[in-house]
Amino acid sequence: MDKAQNLKGFRDFLPEDMVIRQKVISTLKGVFESYGFQPLETPALEYAETLLGKTGEEAEKLFYIFNDPGGRKIGLRYDLTVPVSRVLAQYQNQIPLPFKRYQIQPAWRAENPQKGRYREFTQCDIDTFGSKSPMADAEILAVTYSCLKALGFNKFVIRINSRQVLFDILDKAGISDKEKQLSALRIIDKLDKISEDEVKKELVEKGFEPTTADQFLESIKKAKPDDNLKELMGYLKLLGVGEEFYRFDPTLVRGLDYYTGVIFETKVEEPKIGSITGGGRYDNLVESLGGPDMPATGSSFGLDRICDCIKELNLWPDLKPTETKVLVSVFSPDLLEISIKTTKILRDQEINAELYLNYEAKLDKQLQYADQKGIPYVVIIGPDEVKKNSVVVKNLKTREQKEVTLEDLPNELK
Amino acid sequence: MDKAQNLKGFRDFLPEDMVIRQKVISTLKGVFESYGFQPLETPALEYAETLLGKTGEEAEKLFYIFNDPGGRKIGLRYDLTVPVSRVLAQYQNQIPLPFKRYQIQPAWRAENPQKGRYREFTQCDIDTFGSKSPMADAEILAVTYSCLKALGFNKFVIRINSRQVLFDILDKAGISDKEKQLSALRIIDKLDKISEDEVKKELVEKGFEPTTADQFLESIKKAKPDDNLKELMGYLKLLGVGEEFYRFDPTLVRGLDYYTGVIFETKVEEPKIGSITGGGRYDNLVESLGGPDMPATGSSFGLDRICDCIKELNLWPDLKPTETKVLVSVFSPDLLEISIKTTKILRDQEINAELYLNYEAKLDKQLQYADQKGIPYVVIIGPDEVKKNSVVVKNLKTREQKEVTLEDLPNELK
Repeated sequence: MDKAQNLKGFRDFLPEDMVIRQKVISTLKGVFESYGFQPLETPALEYAETLLGKTGEEAEKLFYIFNDPGGRKIGLRYDLTVPVSRVLAQYQNQIPLPFKRYQIQPAWRAENPQKGRYREFTQCDIDTFGSKSPMADAEILAVTYSCLKALGFNKFVIRINSRQVLFDILDKAGISDKEKQLSALRIIDKLDKISEDEVKKELVEKGFEPTTADQFLESIKKAKPDDNLKELMGYLKLLGVGEEFYRFDPTLVRGLDYYTGVIFETKVEEPKIGSITGGGRYDNLVESLGGPDMPATGSSFGLDRICDCIKELNLWPDLKPTETKVLVSVFSPDLLEISIKTTKILRDQEINAELYLNYEAKLDKQLQYADQKGIPYVVIIGPDEVKKNSVVVKNLKTREQKEVTLEDLPNELK
Repeated sequence: MDKAQNLKGFRDFLPEDMVIRQKVISTLKGVFESYGFQPLETPALEYAETLLGKTGEEAEKLFYIFNDPGGRKIGLRYDLTVPVSRVLAQYQNQIPLPFKRYQIQPAWRAENPQKGRYREFTQCDIDTFGSKSPMADAEILAVTYSCLKALGFNKFVIRINSRQVLFDILDKAGISDKEKQLSALRIIDKLDKISEDEVKKELVEKGFEPTTADQFLESIKKAKPDDNLKELMGYLKLLGVGEEFYRFDPTLVRGLDYYTGVIFETKVEEPKIGSITGGGRYDNLVESLGGPDMPATGSSFGLDRICDCIKELNLWPDLKPTETKVLVSVFSPDLLEISIKTTKILRDQEINAELYLNYEAKLDKQLQYADQKGIPYVVIIGPDEVKKNSVVVKNLKTREQKEVTLEDLPNELK
C-alpha cells in the first residue's frame, strides 16, 4: 500500500458523516415498516447474464463485470431492481403476493465521477409487486410524503404523471411506433431544462414533422389526469397527503424506458439539486428480466442527495457529530479505577460513555480530544472529588462546569 | 436471465431472515456506541495493491481482483482491517486518537463454499487504534461480554491468552526463529481439535526435536498469565465482566500471524459451532499496511454464526417474522375507503399497519396472506361494523376475534 488512497468516485464515510446517514436510513426504515414494507437483501455479485439482461452495448460499459476465480462471468449489481426481479423469479412459490419490500444497499456504476455522482452509492428502494391497483401507486407516494415529513422537509413537491397519458397523446398526434414514442418522450423530458422552442427543434431533428411536434407539445401542456390518476389522487387524500405537496405535471417523463403507468418524482424547493426521490409503475419489467408476469410499482430514495439537503437546509440543528454523550477523563493513572467505575455506572444507566484510554495523558489533552470528537460533556474526577464522592461535569459547549455527587451524575447527564 | 439463480456461495436474505439479522446488528450497534465506538464505512472496492499488501500468492486466489473499465487493477475487500488501516493512513491528520471505530459491512472471499462458510459475509468489527494500554484490550472484551449478554446468551466463555506468553515459552524452549515460532504456534492451535500426541507428532514432523516439543507442550500447559494479562483481568472485574464468562487459556493461539499481544475468542457452550467472536492486539499491522505506526486491538463478531445460535437456542421466542403488526383487510371494494382510513389511524398511532392492496380478493385469501407473512392481527370491517363505527380484530395465533370501536382499536393493538 504505497499510496494510501481510496479509488476515484468512491467515498469513505468517517464517523461524522455516518451519524447523518444512519439517522436518515433509520428514519426511512421506520416509515417503510409502518406501511408494511419488509426488508430484503441480495448479494453484491450476480451472474453477468442476470445483470445485463437486454442492456445495450453502450450501457454495458457502466457495469463492473469480470470473471471470478472459477471462470464465471459475474458482476456487481447496477441497481436493486434487477436483483429483486431475480429473487421474485427464483422464490416465486414461497413469496406471498403482494410482495412489498424495501432494500437499502449499495450499487455500482463505472460512470465518470462528478459532483453528486459516485461509482458506489447507496440505494433505498421500496417496491410493491403483484398489485395492479392505483392504491398500490398511491401508497408508494404516501410513503414518499411520510418519509420526507419524518426527515423534516417542509417544502417539496411530488410531480405526478402517467406514461399512459403520454402514450395517448402520442397516439393522437399520430406517433404510434413504440421506438418513436420513447424517442419523443426522451426529448420532452428536457422541458424543465431547456426552452419549448429548443425541445421542438430537437423533435424536428429527430424526424418529427413540425406540425406534429407542435400538436404534441400543445396537447401535453393541456393534458388532464386520466381516470386512473384521478382515482390515485383520491387515495392520496384519504392517506393524508397534503394537497400542496403533490401536483399533476404532464411534462414529467422520467428517463427510464421501462415505466408503463404512473410516474413521479420529488424535488425540494431549496437547494436546487434535482430530484431526491423518483419512481413509477413498471408492469412488464420483472417478466422481461426472466421473472413471472408481475405488475410492479415503486420508488427510489437518493440517500446522498437527501443527506446533502438536510445539511444545507440545517434541518437537524441539534444533531451531534457523535452518539457518545460523555467522555470520562482520567485525572491521573492512580485514579484510573474510579474513572472506570464511573463509566460503568453511566453505561448501566444507558448513557453512551467513553473512558479516555491513554490515561497517562494530561487532562488538557483529554478535553481537547472530546472537543475534536464533538462529545458534549466531560467528567473529571480528581483527588478532591474522590474524597467527597463527587465528580465535576464540564459542558464543552458552554465551558461551564458543575460538581455533582456520583449518585446524581446519571440524572445530570440525562 | 435464463436461469434466475443467485451465485453459489452467495445468499439472499428474505424478510424473515432479515428480521433476526437486523435485530442482531442493532443490538451490537447499541452496545458499541454505549462504549464510545463510532461508525465507519469504506468502499467495497479498493486498489488491488492496497488489498493484497504482502499477501502470498496462495492467498491471492481467495481475492476477487479484476480490472475496472478504466484499466485499474482493483478488487473487493477481503476483510475490514485493511480498509480501516488505509483510512488511518489517508486521514491521519484529521482522526483524533485513540480512534475507536465499529464497521458492519460485507466482505468477499472466493473460497470453496461449505456449511457456514460463504463467499459474501457480513463482518461486524470493533477496533481501538492508538492505545497500547491493556485497558483498551479489556474494553474490547467488555464490549464482547456486553454484546453477548444483550443478545441473550448466558452460557459462553471468552478464552484469553497472549502471544507474548507464547513467545516467551518458545524462547525458553530454544525456539527463537520467528518463522519457526509461527509454525509451532499454528500446530499448537490444533490442541482443541486433535490429541496432544498428534500435536507432538506434527511438531516433530515440522522439524522440532522430540524433547523440545515435549518441553514446549509441558510449558504451555503450566503457563500462567503474565503481568499484562493480570492487569487486563483486573480491569475486566472493574468493568463488571462476570468471572464465569472468561478464562486464561494458554493453548489458545488464533490463526492469524499478525497478532502481537493479547488474543481472545468466544465460544458458546451449545451449539458446537466454533467461535462466535475473536480478536486480539496487533500493534504492527497498520504500519505494515502503509499506515502510521499505530498500536491496535480489536475483535470481530460473526453475524451469521450469532444468528444461527440465536435460532438454535431459541433465544428470541417472541421474535415475529415481520415488523408488521396488523393487516387491515378490505371486506369488499366498495368498503375500501374505511379500510384506508383505519390503516392511517393505526399508522398515526405508530402501529405498523398494512392495507391489503388487492382489495377485490376474498376475505379468506386476505387472512391466508397475513398467516403466510406471520402478521399477528387482522382487522376486518364489514357493512355491519361500518354502521356501528366498529371493527373486528382477529388474533391469528389464537384465532379469537373481538369487536371494538374504531376509537379503541389502537389501544387494543398496543
